[in-house]
Amino acid sequence: MEQPLRDLDPPSRILLGPGPSNVHPRVSRALTAPVVGYLDPAWFSVMDETVALLRQVYQTTNRVTFPISGTGTAGMEALLFNLIEPGDQVVVAVNGYFGDRIHQIALRAGAEVFPLRAPWGEPISPGRVRIALREHPQVRLVALVHAETSTGVLQPLEEIAEIVHQHGALLLVDCVTSLGGVPVACDAWGIDAAYSCTQKALSCPPGLSPVTISERAWERVSRRKSAAQSWYLDLKLLVDYWLGNRTYHHTPPAAMVYALREGLRLVLEEGIDQRVARHRQLAEALWAGLEALGLPCLATPPNRLPTLTTVLVPEHLDEARVRATLRDRFNLEIGGGLGPLRGKAWRIGLMGAGATPANLLLLLSALETTLAAEGYPLQPGAAVAAAARVLG
Amino acid sequence: MEQPLRDLDPPSRILLGPGPSNVHPRVSRALTAPVVGYLDPAWFSVMDETVALLRQVYQTTNRVTFPISGTGTAGMEALLFNLIEPGDQVVVAVNGYFGDRIHQIALRAGAEVFPLRAPWGEPISPGRVRIALREHPQVRLVALVHAETSTGVLQPLEEIAEIVHQHGALLLVDCVTSLGGVPVACDAWGIDAAYSCTQKALSCPPGLSPVTISERAWERVSRRKSAAQSWYLDLKLLVDYWLGNRTYHHTPPAAMVYALREGLRLVLEEGIDQRVARHRQLAEALWAGLEALGLPCLATPPNRLPTLTTVLVPEHLDEARVRATLRDRFNLEIGGGLGPLRGKAWRIGLMGAGATPANLLLLLSALETTLAAEGYPLQPGAAVAAAARVLG
Repeated sequence: MEQPLRDLDPPSRILLGPGPSNVHPRVSRALTAPVVGYLDPAWFSVMDETVALLRQVYQTTNRVTFPISGTGTAGMEALLFNLIEPGDQVVVAVNGYFGDRIHQIALRAGAEVFPLRAPWGEPISPGRVRIALREHPQVRLVALVHAETSTGVLQPLEEIAEIVHQHGALLLVDCVTSLGGVPVACDAWGIDAAYSCTQKALSCPPGLSPVTISERAWERVSRRKSAAQSWYLDLKLLVDYWLGNRTYHHTPPAAMVYALREGLRLVLEEGIDQRVARHRQLAEALWAGLEALGLPCLATPPNRLPTLTTVLVPEHLDEARVRATLRDRFNLEIGGGLGPLRGKAWRIGLMGAGATPANLLLLLSALETTLAAEGYPLQPGAAVAAAARVLG
Repeated sequence: MEQPLRDLDPPSRILLGPGPSNVHPRVSRALTAPVVGYLDPAWFSVMDETVALLRQVYQTTNRVTFPISGTGTAGMEALLFNLIEPGDQVVVAVNGYFGDRIHQIALRAGAEVFPLRAPWGEPISPGRVRIALREHPQVRLVALVHAETSTGVLQPLEEIAEIVHQHGALLLVDCVTSLGGVPVACDAWGIDAAYSCTQKALSCPPGLSPVTISERAWERVSRRKSAAQSWYLDLKLLVDYWLGNRTYHHTPPAAMVYALREGLRLVLEEGIDQRVARHRQLAEALWAGLEALGLPCLATPPNRLPTLTTVLVPEHLDEARVRATLRDRFNLEIGGGLGPLRGKAWRIGLMGAGATPANLLLLLSALETTLAAEGYPLQPGAAVAAAARVLG
């Protein structure tokens, strides 16, 4: 390969897939703020402010709240590696691609895992969690995905949290596609450990995984007998640096933390309730438009996720070609299906700064245009009109 | 804590500590290039280009060369977790803080570790590696730090690589503080696995760890019996995405990869030889200036590292107060000592975009001014004059 010395010039896509979503311009600017040393008092202020903002967005008073220096999966792994000791019994809800990932990582952590399976597209019922915990009384941790990026299912958590706590176990939740777009009320719901990412409803580039851990869960981490199997993701060491005596652990990704701080500030400036309402309204408009196009969603209300919608593609359509046309002709990204939904589904994200009426109308009209060219029967203008009625 | 809604405003420090170093302006701009999806053909080009540039900077044809999505320690952990199987015998050179970190992580990977200890400030001799391998014939991996950020020692590698290979073992090298400032000739020297970081001589913000792995080492990874203990850092899965069939693993930190690509481009535009010569000349000028100030360096030539110099602080000086004055009065960062050198040493980095004659002269004159105010006896102007003589 020739030495590639051309200037960096990626296209300015409108990102309406499963993430990354479009970065907010203020977040982009924050990325270029001067990097300072990891023991500089000016940096400590940035850390403290980021932690304080993050607690507000997670709706928690948990002391142990900070970003892990890796993407969402690093946060998933950090929580599992620190909350699980080899031989621990764990229940993991496996009703989508990311529940399956939790399952795999829990196995690598040495857990005995009892998977709680449900068809992709359906949530896990509280009753099934209750039965699983009765069957396996030694279970110490229950893990679920709040917003399944593969299926577009929003998992109700409050009742499950109560059952898990009655049992004396901890509840761990994947909030990768919910935080910043859908309510995540950690304290009110009784979530013991949650992780998220930066590149979806927080409108930042990918690269960090904000986590929060309740006092009860932190006690389990503090009292574990074995060292966590990762040093990079060892929460005791990380908390010493982020929230304790600032003992050096690794050089924190300063530019990414600047970006996260700005992304969180944007969430709170808009207001969590208003932001949630914006995502909800745009999702309902999208769903109305899809219905007008005759395209069914995998998940059904009330468990359909506002931030990400999984659409079932009619069998005669070449779904990859439709996505390529949207990308190459309209500079617009939507996602394909994961796992068993590969080749059978689209995933449409309306998240963070990308969740705007303009992006929604563009998507529906570009999709309609592309589908019409593929010979798909539709009534011109119906999708946009249906969406516009919801937007009001 | 009040909701911190003030604008982000970190000071523009001149970063002459152990890293992060100052980000090059072109790298800053690259951070703000539009993020695209992780399966976008435009993104695949960026990945391929970054890999090709990285191979050139690592002076290797290794296929398995790409950035890990975490800081330098994540790269350290990725290589150790994938190259070590539980029960493997490993020799680790422990003659500084980061050798000790390798030791700790190798233990978490389940290795039986034979530490090869030397006083901080001294390199490991080839003879000691030969003896250790004779004593422990089952050893499969030898790990050393090429450029110890805690001591300022540059570890010679060529002869050791030969000994390690004669023994049939693999050589793993920490290049965190060497890559981009000191020659790292992976293929010519016979390095089997190396990791580095972005925030030192590559002039990028912290956040990625570029790694490279020889064919022989990759074979060991491919044939391991157990799964790597980390899923996030599982090289087989990562290589499928970065260099294989693009199977989704995690959403790559696009902005950081853009930055790395630009940082690598800057290295090659300057030319590796010229860049190495620049770092070498500035280091020699620094050392001359320190000598004129009567400040001894921990490491002695020829094993003194050009990118980072560890200076022993005279006993009567309050080293932390000197650093605070440099920071608060002159906006200039140098580092303190790590581990046993805490309170006893300064660490001065002249790396990447920060390695300039202007920064060097500023540092020496600010240091002289500050030391004079502390009552330290010195000849005014001598340090700058000594450095200027070297710069020519």
